[in-house]
Amino acid sequence: MLKLKKISVIGMGLLGSSVTLSAKSGLSGTKVIGYSHRGSTRDKARQHEVAHEITDSLEQAVLGADMVILATPIQTFEDYFRQIGPNLKDGCIVTDVGSTKTLPHQWAQKRLPESVYYVGSHPIAGSEKRGLEFARDDLLAGAKCILTQTEQTNPGSIELLEKFWSKLGCKVSIMSPQTHDRIFGLVSHLPHIAAAAMVNASRSKDLQFAGRGFIDTTRVASGPANVWADILLTNSKNCAKGIQKLIAQLEELQDAVNRRDAEKVEKLLSSASEKRGKLIQYKIDQQELF
Amino acid sequence: MLKLKKISVIGMGLLGSSVTLSAKSGLSGTKVIGYSHRGSTRDKARQHEVAHEITDSLEQAVLGADMVILATPIQTFEDYFRQIGPNLKDGCIVTDVGSTKTLPHQWAQKRLPESVYYVGSHPIAGSEKRGLEFARDDLLAGAKCILTQTEQTNPGSIELLEKFWSKLGCKVSIMSPQTHDRIFGLVSHLPHIAAAAMVNASRSKDLQFAGRGFIDTTRVASGPANVWADILLTNSKNCAKGIQKLIAQLEELQDAVNRRDAEKVEKLLSSASEKRGKLIQYKIDQQELF
Repeated sequence: MLKLKKISVIGMGLLGSSVTLSAKSGLSGTKVIGYSHRGSTRDKARQHEVAHEITDSLEQAVLGADMVILATPIQTFEDYFRQIGPNLKDGCIVTDVGSTKTLPHQWAQKRLPESVYYVGSHPIAGSEKRGLEFARDDLLAGAKCILTQTEQTNPGSIELLEKFWSKLGCKVSIMSPQTHDRIFGLVSHLPHIAAAAMVNASRSKDLQFAGRGFIDTTRVASGPANVWADILLTNSKNCAKGIQKLIAQLEELQDAVNRRDAEKVEKLLSSASEKRGKLIQYKIDQQELF
Repeated sequence: MLKLKKISVIGMGLLGSSVTLSAKSGLSGTKVIGYSHRGSTRDKARQHEVAHEITDSLEQAVLGADMVILATPIQTFEDYFRQIGPNLKDGCIVTDVGSTKTLPHQWAQKRLPESVYYVGSHPIAGSEKRGLEFARDDLLAGAKCILTQTEQTNPGSIELLEKFWSKLGCKVSIMSPQTHDRIFGLVSHLPHIAAAAMVNASRSKDLQFAGRGFIDTTRVASGPANVWADILLTNSKNCAKGIQKLIAQLEELQDAVNRRDAEKVEKLLSSASEKRGKLIQYKIDQQELF
């Protein structure tokens, strides 16, 4: 169905190798190539047979590919674009699975040849587990996947990627990289920042009294620090703005509590409770709550 | 075993009526009385037989009681102490199940007669559900219960309450009301404040893209606004201090992100991740994680 004879995934972590596994089982007539810069990871990838072929060379991986998907840390993208650029065939679609999108678009514009098409992808799937061992061919099933486009983006590439991610089970939305980074700065990166700040603000010996409230509120802070640092550092302006918004809300509550303004405190808490209630109802309606 | 012929619980919400139910089934030879100021709640309490007897009058409820437990909003305690004081028999133990403890101790000191003994109790049990309909006689099983004492507290009363809550399945700790409010300000009230602030900082239309991270981080914000306003307003100083600490941590992260100081960002995130990892391990070791 999709005219993709060869796709290559660079980076064989949990997400990269789940993409190769899903593509292997979901697409017929497509050869799925995997590459990792680490020899030990390539060995594991071969053992687990996550792709049709694991190549030892980056050049070999992308040569003749119809689509190349970066699944490495976001901060490596610029360098990978530079490295793979000369080896990409004309009309190749380049995308990635990174959690921030504005910088990747800028880097693609700067580093990729004009003969290839870049589109940003952000499949919102993951697991608290890390690494190829936990890869699954259904990790993407039911996940949202955001595609990002600018005025330069080739419409045919967007269409093809929309079909590709849909085939892998994703629900696709399209927006600009700026909108993506603003929204995810607030709904994803800010919760991570707040959770980490809350844990850092607590004394270890007091935590024996922490209950489910604290544990749930800070769950995301247990995520891998290097992955999240990569995300925050490539969305720094939106994160900084989000922190400012959160601090403003905290100060409003602090002020109301300090003045013992019962009406205001209750109003702030009930507006949050109602707004979250609507979110939960929406997620239930969309069957996105599990 | 416990020399309690009559205990009275004032307030028939989820927690109050779970206490009467647990006492009914866990203590032999103790008559358990319930009271609510609302006629409709008293009717429901009788229907559900949450206590041996539901009285229509507050005076009747506490007359001759060996122990009186307040399970009403914290901000009503001072007034209840004033109302019930004259009707309490000498040596009666007065306690409560409120989530903050410094003010209740002050109010007890001021409003209760010297012939009775006040001790603060905070059984850490609850549910997202509210009201008598959801009361259970095992709601307290395995829960922590903090008892709070000052220099004025009668040691015999502490011992008796320790036995009482243990009988109902609680794991009892003892501390000062000031320590209690400082700790719970950080591990319980601050997560609630942060969750509400995070929801309030978000735009409704962006929330369709919220994933599990946002949903878990803000779960507690769905709690009942009036109950939480009552808690925050009776622990205002600790809440304000906690917010200050959280803001300081947020600003440290914001600064590191703004300066794109990768090492610092990763260090802050990994210290949070490690600290939370230890907390989870402790909770697993204590079999407190469910």
